[in-house]
Amino acid sequence: MASVRIREAKEGDCGDILRLIRELADFEKLSDQVKISEEALRADGFGDNPFYHCLVAEILPAPGKLLGQGIGSKIIKKVAEVALDKGCSQFRLAVLDWNQRAMDLYKALGAQDLTEAEGWHFFCFQGEATRKLAGK
Amino acid sequence: MASVRIREAKEGDCGDILRLIRELADFEKLSDQVKISEEALRADGFGDNPFYHCLVAEILPAPGKLLGQGIGSKIIKKVAEVALDKGCSQFRLAVLDWNQRAMDLYKALGAQDLTEAEGWHFFCFQGEATRKLAGK
Repeated sequence: MASVRIREAKEGDCGDILRLIRELADFEKLSDQVKISEEALRADGFGDNPFYHCLVAEILPAPGKLLGQGIGSKIIKKVAEVALDKGCSQFRLAVLDWNQRAMDLYKALGAQDLTEAEGWHFFCFQGEATRKLAGK
Repeated sequence: MASVRIREAKEGDCGDILRLIRELADFEKLSDQVKISEEALRADGFGDNPFYHCLVAEILPAPGKLLGQGIGSKIIKKVAEVALDKGCSQFRLAVLDWNQRAMDLYKALGAQDLTEAEGWHFFCFQGEATRKLAGK
């Protein structure tokens, strides 16, 4: 069993975070949507008024595969702790409907699929639409 | 035609914002989910590191209905301006799949339905699930 430690991300993690974003996007078949740079990750997450917060899982080397080691559950439990500490009444995740493994995990941990249950859809204004709306 | 001015919300708007949240939730048939207080709205939006930002539309009294005056478009255009100013590459909205009027407006303004196009679902950990995960 791998040994896992969940901690807050530091600015020096941004190179690894970008690599993981790219690996996730590759898995999600959405690699063409990753346009962020390491520099932007540093600026957005580690300034005075950060746009995002990030946890990282440090995994001590262990034989065997990483899947099935409970790393996802540990991260989500930590997110729940942070959410409560910050006074949040709930927290949300976005998941692709073919990612059955992720959906099964989230449901097993107590999440509700709000798109299925209530009909919530994500609408997105991409860069070009945003610039057009702003007249820029 | 009503005269509309879009501006940043002030702390003193929180009473009206809560009233509008309740009216929206009532329209969405989700009134039982509104648990926030005016006090929490003040604390969350107007502290040192605000959890949300808010625009309000000030509408000068005019005869006739408010629907169809283009207020929604004006607010979304302002959101696009703010997004670009802050360096965002996109922005997202959540909409219920039976709210055809809203979906039609967002699409007409250039938004893409990511749930329909790519299969994104909202998963939500509500309060009880969050407390259970955090062991509290």
